[in-house]
Formats: sequence, C-alpha cells, structure tokens
Amino acid sequence: MDERAALALLERELEAAGDDAAVVDGLVITTDMLHERTDFPAGTTRYTAGWRAVGASLSDVAAMGAEATAAVAAYAAPEFDAEELLAFVRGASDVCERVGGEYVGGDLDGHEEFTATTTAIGSTDDPVYRSGATPGDVVCVTGTLGRSAAALELFERGTRHDDPDVLERANELFRFEPRIAAGRALAPHATAMMDSSDGLARSLHQLAEASDCGFEIDAETIPIDDALRSVAASDDEALERATTFGEDFELVVTIPEDAVETVQSALAVDLSVIGSVTARENGITMDGEALEDRGYTH
Amino acid sequence: MDERAALALLERELEAAGDDAAVVDGLVITTDMLHERTDFPAGTTRYTAGWRAVGASLSDVAAMGAEATAAVAAYAAPEFDAEELLAFVRGASDVCERVGGEYVGGDLDGHEEFTATTTAIGSTDDPVYRSGATPGDVVCVTGTLGRSAAALELFERGTRHDDPDVLERANELFRFEPRIAAGRALAPHATAMMDSSDGLARSLHQLAEASDCGFEIDAETIPIDDALRSVAASDDEALERATTFGEDFELVVTIPEDAVETVQSALAVDLSVIGSVTARENGITMDGEALEDRGYTH
Repeated sequence: MDERAALALLERELEAAGDDAAVVDGLVITTDMLHERTDFPAGTTRYTAGWRAVGASLSDVAAMGAEATAAVAAYAAPEFDAEELLAFVRGASDVCERVGGEYVGGDLDGHEEFTATTTAIGSTDDPVYRSGATPGDVVCVTGTLGRSAAALELFERGTRHDDPDVLERANELFRFEPRIAAGRALAPHATAMMDSSDGLARSLHQLAEASDCGFEIDAETIPIDDALRSVAASDDEALERATTFGEDFELVVTIPEDAVETVQSALAVDLSVIGSVTARENGITMDGEALEDRGYTH
Repeated sequence: MDERAALALLERELEAAGDDAAVVDGLVITTDMLHERTDFPAGTTRYTAGWRAVGASLSDVAAMGAEATAAVAAYAAPEFDAEELLAFVRGASDVCERVGGEYVGGDLDGHEEFTATTTAIGSTDDPVYRSGATPGDVVCVTGTLGRSAAALELFERGTRHDDPDVLERANELFRFEPRIAAGRALAPHATAMMDSSDGLARSLHQLAEASDCGFEIDAETIPIDDALRSVAASDDEALERATTFGEDFELVVTIPEDAVETVQSALAVDLSVIGSVTARENGITMDGEALEDRGYTH
C-alpha cells in the first residue's frame, strides 16, 4: 500500500482526518514528519531546517484559516551538536514569532538520520475546509509558486561548486512565510482552502475531490516565482515545475468572484486569480487540456 | 553532548520547556518520538505501540494536572501495511477514549525504522509544575511501579520460546492507563507533579532540582507491581527495577500531609505515600542511604 492509499484508509477510519489539520474544540492541530534524505537537501542549514519544519505545520494551520497558537518539534539526530540544535530551535522560534505563535520546545531523540516531527496548534471558531468550493467561484493562489523548486536547483549547484553564496540564496528561498495572516483575511470569504505543499496540480485535485467540483485554470495567470524562471531552462519548464513540484506552502483558495477585490486589498501578499470552479463533470483543465494529478507525495 | 545535556541547553533557551509539557494560553502541549529499536521490543503489537506511544504523551498531560483534549501521531514505517496501520490507529484511539480525549490522526511517512512521534494537547487553567514541592509535604506515587520492567522480561521470554500467551501478557502490561483522572483529582492539592517515565529515582532527582528540595524515601512503601515481583529473581532486584527502570507512566506527586486522605478517597487508583519532602541539603535518600540519579534516558 502506498502512502496515498494509506492516507485514504485513515480518512475512512478517523472522522477528523483528511483536511490540512484536524479540528477539535476550536483548536486546529497538525503534525508532519520530515527526514534529512527526502526533505532537507545537502546545504540546508539547521536554522533553515527548523524554520521550514515548523513552518510546514504552521502552513497547515493557515490553510484552516486559523490563528497560530504554538508549535513543538521532536528532533532526532545521530548526535546532539549544541550549535546545530540551537540553530534549529532559533529557526523554529523565528518562524513562530513571524506569524504570532510561540515555539515551546519538544523532544530529543537519538536516531541515525536527522528527523524532525513538528506539530502546530492554532485556534479558530470557523475553520475553512477543503470541501466548500462552488461552481462560479474563482480559484486563487497566494504569493508565488516555484521557490522551493528553485531552491532545490540552487542547493544542487551550490553543493556541486561548493559556493556559499548560492547555498545562502537556496536557504533563503527554502524559508517561507507561513500564510497565517493571509489565511485569516481569506477565511471569512473562502469557500474552500488548502496549502500547496503537494503542488498546485495535486492541490486542485484534492480540492476537487473534497468539494465535488472541477477547475478551469488559465496557465498565463499562474504566479511563477522569478527565482524559478531564472533557473529553469525554458518558460515551459518553469510552468511545469511551478504546477507540479510543490513544497511551496502557499494557499490555494476558492472565493466568490465578487469578493476578490475586497480580499486583495486586505492582504499583505499578492493573491492571483488563476481560474474558476466548474461542475465536476468538466474535470480539471489548464488552457483547455486535462491537468493531471501529478505532484509531490510526502 | 548527550541527550540530557542537550535538554538542559534547550531549557535555558526556551522559557516554556523543561516540564512534562509546555503551557500556552491554558493549553498544555507535549511531544515524544519513539523508535522500534529502543521503545518497542520484539513482540509488541502495533495496537500496543499505538496505545503506548499516544499514552506516553497523554501521561505528560496528566502530569500537568490537565484534561486530555486531543492527540496526533506521525507514523513512519518502511511500508504501509493496512492491518498494522489500522491496529496502531485503534490503539491510539482507544487510549485517548479511555481518558476522554480524541485521537485525530496525523502524518504518514516512509522510513526504514518504525518510528512514531506523538503529540498530546490538554487544557487546564491551573497547571501543576515540578517546582513547588515544600519540606514537610509527603511524596506519593499512583498505581504500581514495574509493569514495564516486567513486560520487557516477558517480551524476551515470549520471543525466545515463541509463546503467544506470554507475549499477550507482555502487551497487556505495556498498555498503561494515562493518569489523567488522577492528575485532575490531585491537581488542587499537588505542590509538584511529574510522571515516572524516566524511573522513580530520576523523577525524584528532577523534582528535587526543580523544587530545590530533598526527599526521604521509605523503600518498604514503594508499590512494586506483582508482575515485576513474579519475574524478578529476588525482592532486592524487584525493588531495584521498580526504582530505576522507568517507563511506567505513573504520577510522582508531592502534597501536604493533611491532604492525603481527601485525595486518596477521590482517586480511583491507589495512591501510595512513599516518603517526605526535606530541605535540599538532606539530598535524596532511601532508607537512609543516598538514592542515586539512575534511570532511563530517553
């Protein structure tokens, strides 16, 4: 059984599972486990790892339209180096502080591969699920897509050429701002929301599945990050990676068309309208062609 | 740097760290990472693993005197076997249900060693810390000590002789009841509290450090579990393991002497008075001899 089949099994078993975060008593709760081999490319600093690991969980809190309350992390490594551990904790604390939450520590554990499990908790009286998108709504994305795809390319180049400047730029791109503030501003208008951690294409498929709808996407409107454009060999390649690479932690959200202006003026980050919600039988298309369910499987 | 030194470093860095759970906005939050090699002996079923992993985090919630709200787990394994995964989830759900909390799912991840990171959340307006023990108080422990030490012995015997009955008994002993109800009943009277997961001796040292006090323990009053007595070679060995083995998840608590009867009658579980709180300069003694800081380092 692969990971997606296992997740589907759990969704059937657990009422609260299946969205970006579980909702209990006005709290939203989400947990993620990240490993060095699959999630932290060579060149990732422990500061960036702490920021990114905790940020990934905060992004799930944002996707529910909730405020950030607190986060914890379980940190496992073959040995505990004081400098690395403190760097991780500072990254974790800084990303929490950035979004108004508190990093409150966690657990330490010996393990042959550097592994971090992060849990974030948020609060909201009115969570936004993946299931309310309605034909006629527009579908939007916050910020830009492709920062992480660009970072990965730069981590490879920086490691190959042993170039600290390139690695520093890769680390910067890898540290994203969890969209807590945007999620809060979008929540009163959003009919469905999730984060783009599995890539735009997969996110649209998941929203379509949960909301029983389709999507028509206009490729030209997808906000491709400049960093990705500058490392991609062609515009087509940039679009392909922006659509399917994932790991970007932006919000993918559906809202009524007449709310777009109000929401855009309330957000500190760009909100791009990239298409519209259709009836389910229309499927998911980009520029009229089927957009396949490809992306990152965590 | 070993794990204890690393934990001490983090306590200096993070205000909320250093107790059984962190406290934020009336919530208590705790996370633990467990691994197959160190935490789940051969013969442990996935149902027991789910129960025990989530139970360990709920035990930290209990140690703060909080109610159990919810728990999540990140489950990592080399492959996802539907039966094993469901068994884990059922164990996790059952232990939550037992203490009035809700298991709400989590994350799945591919990993060569079976690893579970659990996070539990509780709520209380009046958390009990490790730091309030006062000379003159008595020190008490809930339930019995040595269940896990006995379980480990039975896992070894059961695996060696391929005996399913012995393994079933080991699994039963390994599934403990997190002391949420006892923690709630103790909270109004407790001056300091923690769980015994690192062993009684280490717990007393940690309470002494946090409360700036000493302890006089009467060995005869330590509630040694019958299962441990029946597998130990001698009474001395049973006492030694009950004192230092740990992994039992009972509560170690200090209360004013005149509250003992009230508390005992309010608890559904036994509460044994095992000694008294002294001034710091008296150190920690058992039957008049120094009780060393030995135990389980997670």
